[in-house]
Amino acid sequence: MLLRMSTLFVRTLREDPADAEVASHRLLVRAGYIRRAAPGIYTWLPLGLRVLAKVERVVREEMDAIGAQEVHFPALLPKEPYEATGRWAEYGPNIFRLKDRKGADYLLAPTHEELFTLLVKDLYSSYKDLPLALYQIQTKYRDEARPRAGLIRGREFVMKDAYSFDVDDEGLARAYEAQRAAYQRIFRRLGLEFVIVAATSGAMGGSRSEEFLTPTAIGEDTFVRSAGGYAANVEAVTTPVPEPVDLSDAPAAHVEDTPDTPTIDSLVAHANAHQARADRPWTAADTLKNVVLALVHPTGERELVVVGLPGDREVDLKRLEAGVAPAEVEPAGDADFAAHPELVRGYLGPGAVGPNAPAGPDGERASVRYMLDPRVVPGTRWITGANEPGRHVFDLVAGRDFTADGTVEAAEVRAGDPAPDGSGPLELARGIEIGHIFQLGRKYAQALGLTVLDRNGKSVVVTMGSYGIGVTRVLAALAEAHHDERGLAWPAHVAPAHVHVVATGKDEAVFAAAEALATTLSARGVEVLYDDRPKVSPGVKFADAELLGVPLVVVVGRGLADGVVEVRPRAGGTAEQVSVHAAADRVAELVDGLLAG
Amino acid sequence: MLLRMSTLFVRTLREDPADAEVASHRLLVRAGYIRRAAPGIYTWLPLGLRVLAKVERVVREEMDAIGAQEVHFPALLPKEPYEATGRWAEYGPNIFRLKDRKGADYLLAPTHEELFTLLVKDLYSSYKDLPLALYQIQTKYRDEARPRAGLIRGREFVMKDAYSFDVDDEGLARAYEAQRAAYQRIFRRLGLEFVIVAATSGAMGGSRSEEFLTPTAIGEDTFVRSAGGYAANVEAVTTPVPEPVDLSDAPAAHVEDTPDTPTIDSLVAHANAHQARADRPWTAADTLKNVVLALVHPTGERELVVVGLPGDREVDLKRLEAGVAPAEVEPAGDADFAAHPELVRGYLGPGAVGPNAPAGPDGERASVRYMLDPRVVPGTRWITGANEPGRHVFDLVAGRDFTADGTVEAAEVRAGDPAPDGSGPLELARGIEIGHIFQLGRKYAQALGLTVLDRNGKSVVVTMGSYGIGVTRVLAALAEAHHDERGLAWPAHVAPAHVHVVATGKDEAVFAAAEALATTLSARGVEVLYDDRPKVSPGVKFADAELLGVPLVVVVGRGLADGVVEVRPRAGGTAEQVSVHAAADRVAELVDGLLAG
Repeated sequence: MLLRMSTLFVRTLREDPADAEVASHRLLVRAGYIRRAAPGIYTWLPLGLRVLAKVERVVREEMDAIGAQEVHFPALLPKEPYEATGRWAEYGPNIFRLKDRKGADYLLAPTHEELFTLLVKDLYSSYKDLPLALYQIQTKYRDEARPRAGLIRGREFVMKDAYSFDVDDEGLARAYEAQRAAYQRIFRRLGLEFVIVAATSGAMGGSRSEEFLTPTAIGEDTFVRSAGGYAANVEAVTTPVPEPVDLSDAPAAHVEDTPDTPTIDSLVAHANAHQARADRPWTAADTLKNVVLALVHPTGERELVVVGLPGDREVDLKRLEAGVAPAEVEPAGDADFAAHPELVRGYLGPGAVGPNAPAGPDGERASVRYMLDPRVVPGTRWITGANEPGRHVFDLVAGRDFTADGTVEAAEVRAGDPAPDGSGPLELARGIEIGHIFQLGRKYAQALGLTVLDRNGKSVVVTMGSYGIGVTRVLAALAEAHHDERGLAWPAHVAPAHVHVVATGKDEAVFAAAEALATTLSARGVEVLYDDRPKVSPGVKFADAELLGVPLVVVVGRGLADGVVEVRPRAGGTAEQVSVHAAADRVAELVDGLLAG
Repeated sequence: MLLRMSTLFVRTLREDPADAEVASHRLLVRAGYIRRAAPGIYTWLPLGLRVLAKVERVVREEMDAIGAQEVHFPALLPKEPYEATGRWAEYGPNIFRLKDRKGADYLLAPTHEELFTLLVKDLYSSYKDLPLALYQIQTKYRDEARPRAGLIRGREFVMKDAYSFDVDDEGLARAYEAQRAAYQRIFRRLGLEFVIVAATSGAMGGSRSEEFLTPTAIGEDTFVRSAGGYAANVEAVTTPVPEPVDLSDAPAAHVEDTPDTPTIDSLVAHANAHQARADRPWTAADTLKNVVLALVHPTGERELVVVGLPGDREVDLKRLEAGVAPAEVEPAGDADFAAHPELVRGYLGPGAVGPNAPAGPDGERASVRYMLDPRVVPGTRWITGANEPGRHVFDLVAGRDFTADGTVEAAEVRAGDPAPDGSGPLELARGIEIGHIFQLGRKYAQALGLTVLDRNGKSVVVTMGSYGIGVTRVLAALAEAHHDERGLAWPAHVAPAHVHVVATGKDEAVFAAAEALATTLSARGVEVLYDDRPKVSPGVKFADAELLGVPLVVVVGRGLADGVVEVRPRAGGTAEQVSVHAAADRVAELVDGLLAG
């Protein structure tokens, strides 16, 4: 393959696009790989399309290698299957909806669980037909509220989505492991660093769930990892529950006047000034903060809850949402407090909520549900609100003086927190989600009636796994991982070409030698991008080569008078002067090395 | 490549799908290549996807070979570019429209002229950047009123669309010829018979325009061809205009009572009974029929016209529409006749319309426009309506007694009509349009401001060519062209596999030999589909092989006891008994022959 810059449909740009916040977006546009067509919707230019095809090929080969079979579903789909699973309503404004000329409702599919399930139901009926794994590489649509970061969060994007179909849980576990191993091979072949993190299965139901994240500071997802090998999405981190504390000799709870202490800081300062303890100063960790929030259930019902957690931690809404899914969480408002005068702002304590609230005249308790952070184990002692303005209660002991309706993982995870598996302290990092595998289980099969007859002739619901890779997002992640301030620097396997031959100057001999080298390399199967532009300065050509990011740059220029050309690895490393006669051999050898590496 | 029937995701069906009218639709569904997801919207199963990928590869290779560069546009697009060219309105109900969460209008693109034009405008600015040819293989959407015939007229389908960009007409002509030659290579490689027919450029503007049709009785398009090599779409056939007739001694026109003759047949019968001519009987060809029709202009304006043509021909609405594009044509209704009492039904003649109508009291003529078939040349004599019930005029001479506002190709084309280029009589045939190439010219470049500086620094509007192939439709056309009553019979280049190895019976030795043959062939690069199903009868396996249509079927069965296997070409020809030891060599040789053929 030989592409010539003189005819290649590309224009590099010196200016960053105005809307670009991240390097991949900035550089892919500047290098002429993609062009914006609408918010979150991109056109692929020839170089971009070449990289995309290479990414797709790796994904396809690894899917085929584990026996997954490729199919292709439409993007435009009738609403009925999505109504059957409730997702037509659940997606709300996040999907594109339309009507055809007859007024029938359609959507642009964001994912295809329903269609995969129905197709297998349509064709298969026996346990003998299983196991089965199907996949597609297909264009998906999502009407993101805030499309951003170029290809990282788009509204039209390419995904590989695979589903496995098994008659029992053991089969599902095997299918899951096969996909998990294939994903590792895919990302390794693509040259993309990744971390596999435990994930919550969230609203999708199912059990085991892991995300593949590529670490990068610009990632939208926060994850944690320990030196001992634990890694999880913050939503999935569970708090190691402390042993209950024996506080049989703890003092009785006592209410104190703490005027003007509606915040944790003011409360701690007041406590240290007026109720100083002998052994050490009070800290925020001694206080129990009670936060009022509203759960919005899928039915639309709005339910107030109070979450109690150590005062030195904030509520992490995403973690809380993972714990209360499919409900969503929003802050409580003035109307909520007005409707619940027992929730005294700034001075709220366990006594007013959950099982601790006084029963009404009829003996019934109509109190707001109270959920506790797992750290608040029986025996722990707290300073917390006394449910009167300007007053707090001290030495309030969990399990003795108050209980709750349950526990919930609502507190933020912090660097240094212990890993739940005891593998050491956690560090926090950010990443881009590039893959997600999870055991869907029987949710979709149940909803859509996908059953097979088992070996005893009994009808059983099929169990499914779901395995996704954001193909266009992977390309952006590659650009994030492989660039510098001057441009892109693709790994050889996904680069639009292996070698960028640059002819500099005006000397005809230079162009003849460069042309011969480009042609020879191309005939040997090396993919060559040849900058044959006759009237473009060396500076512009070098800048373009660095922006475009082909892994090897070969400069044919002044050195030719001495019989040498220069070979530079784009990603860094030493430039070599190579005899022009040996250049094709040496470059081919370097390319082989890069492709093998 | 080795696919096993025991695990391949396919189920053949014995019953035709209820909605299938044509063989390709019936067989592609029954053989498990595609499944209907919604009207005109299909899911691709593994075998179908393999054929589609092979068709796409041929198209891509031939586009690349002529230097066209691949890009990829989104399917979901904002309305603005389509408003700039007027197509947002023109498409009417034929496209899918939707709004995003912010209320902005979008469409699912039926074609991408606007986007190609804007992309080139975005990147290029000089004559030095041209010529340029870009293409994509992409999913298109059209909200067909009557999706039909499976993949032949769908609502979601794949097209290859290419556009050329040139600074002058010579460049456009060269680009057009290059695409035309590439199309011929593509269809030949695919094994698809085709006819190149002259086409009208219609509402798209531009000049030269040709369609590639594959002849088939179930085709939606009628075309004509002569033994001498002329071929055209019926809309594009022009009528050879006869020489004017010298009728200086023709009798004067005379009105006759012709009671109860509102039809051509009744008029001819009456004329032969009451105004018999000496030399021969009157025929319908002696009468001039005047048909009232309404043109609906893109503005919505509705204009009545009267078309005069020989009484032995019907009006062909598609031909008329091609002549009056972008207006559409519909029949006149009672309200039209009520509004125009001068249009006497059944007795309408030229005297009431066009330039022949009497002027009003103000000297102005407000008559309905009158268009004539090109056969009605000056000097021809006609029997036609006298504009009074029950009366006709005889010996009315064109040019002497009436004229018109112009001519129009509205009459049907009939077998035996002369080809316009004098190459003999025309025959009529039907075909499926599989490709369309035409010289768009400057319409889109003008509307969207795509200009470049020419070599004198002057801004010139770029001229464009448009080149489309219906990729999914080509696959259906291949199935139409290559099947019999038992199933599909793919040409080797597009078949999902080259060889279908069938193991019959229950003998373990048979399965071992079949497995060895399949593995050996696969290792040699032959694509093998191996029917390894242990408990399926030979009859079912043979029926499946014939339905699936892989070009070579190898039966490993009873003959194995005698050391032979049978090799059958699916499309017909002699079955061979081949020694099992020589089988791999012989099959590989036959496959090579088929691929070379």
